[in-house]
Amino acid sequence: MIRPARPADVPAIHRLICDLAEYERSRDQVEATPGHLHAALFGPAPAVFAHVAETEAGTESGTESGDGPQIVGFALWFLNFSTWTGRHGIYLEDLYVRPEHRGGGHGRALLTELARICVERGYRRLEWAVLDWNEPSIGFYKALGAVPMDEWTVFRLTGDALAKVAGDGES
Amino acid sequence: MIRPARPADVPAIHRLICDLAEYERSRDQVEATPGHLHAALFGPAPAVFAHVAETEAGTESGTESGDGPQIVGFALWFLNFSTWTGRHGIYLEDLYVRPEHRGGGHGRALLTELARICVERGYRRLEWAVLDWNEPSIGFYKALGAVPMDEWTVFRLTGDALAKVAGDGES
Repeated sequence: MIRPARPADVPAIHRLICDLAEYERSRDQVEATPGHLHAALFGPAPAVFAHVAETEAGTESGTESGDGPQIVGFALWFLNFSTWTGRHGIYLEDLYVRPEHRGGGHGRALLTELARICVERGYRRLEWAVLDWNEPSIGFYKALGAVPMDEWTVFRLTGDALAKVAGDGES
Repeated sequence: MIRPARPADVPAIHRLICDLAEYERSRDQVEATPGHLHAALFGPAPAVFAHVAETEAGTESGTESGDGPQIVGFALWFLNFSTWTGRHGIYLEDLYVRPEHRGGGHGRALLTELARICVERGYRRLEWAVLDWNEPSIGFYKALGAVPMDEWTVFRLTGDALAKVAGDGES
């Protein structure tokens, strides 16, 4: 049901990323192409990883692609690091299950697999960011025992501001 | 003034991490040893990186270690990834300059170096988290053009809760 992504999964993962962006009301912000994903996930020395949730043909209603197994969700993640623990952890960048396949345990199974990897490798933390208005997800995560890092805000430097800071060292 | 960390810098970086934790009122939460840092930064295929800010001997007041150059700040970072941009970015886990060396441009120079790496490699975002009560830093970051991701909250699964989720797949 849960397995590491393979190169042949890239088109399906890309479609799910576009679906997720739509859910987050940001479809127009997706610049990533299947080529970008393939290069990052399956190039030399990858620094980002993905797992997929797959159904068997015929085990769920609403399948649309005939007989083969179908990718209905994915988790995309990378390693973070804490200077307090001195160990790596997993940062879950995206977790998504297609709406018509929710409630089947796929999201939970993806999280379980990442938690299992953490425990197996001695990673101390599994972290991810949630939109503040996404109440269904927040309830689910709190029920798992995840704790909101309410005291912290992420700052982002991008675009022209990033280029400007990068240019500070030039004369 | 700014250079990638070397193995010999690990004890100095560890001291700065402990100082930073004290500033963040969390000194008791630092479990990391110099050995952990050395393994993560200088083991095979590292997934975390550091730069240090170094003064020349005699160029600043308050030096305490005699004639050699002195490490007065550091940045520790790893690669993140955005499924929207399809590219990597840099996540800055820690940025710290010793209080008696602030105002000398070391923090800005560390950020400039990371921004430069982003631009050079085609990374799209430089991100970091700030404690909500750390007003001096927030003002500095906003002046650089960094944008607070106010709509997002990071959730963390760790300790017993992480182990429990990891165990869900077992019978």
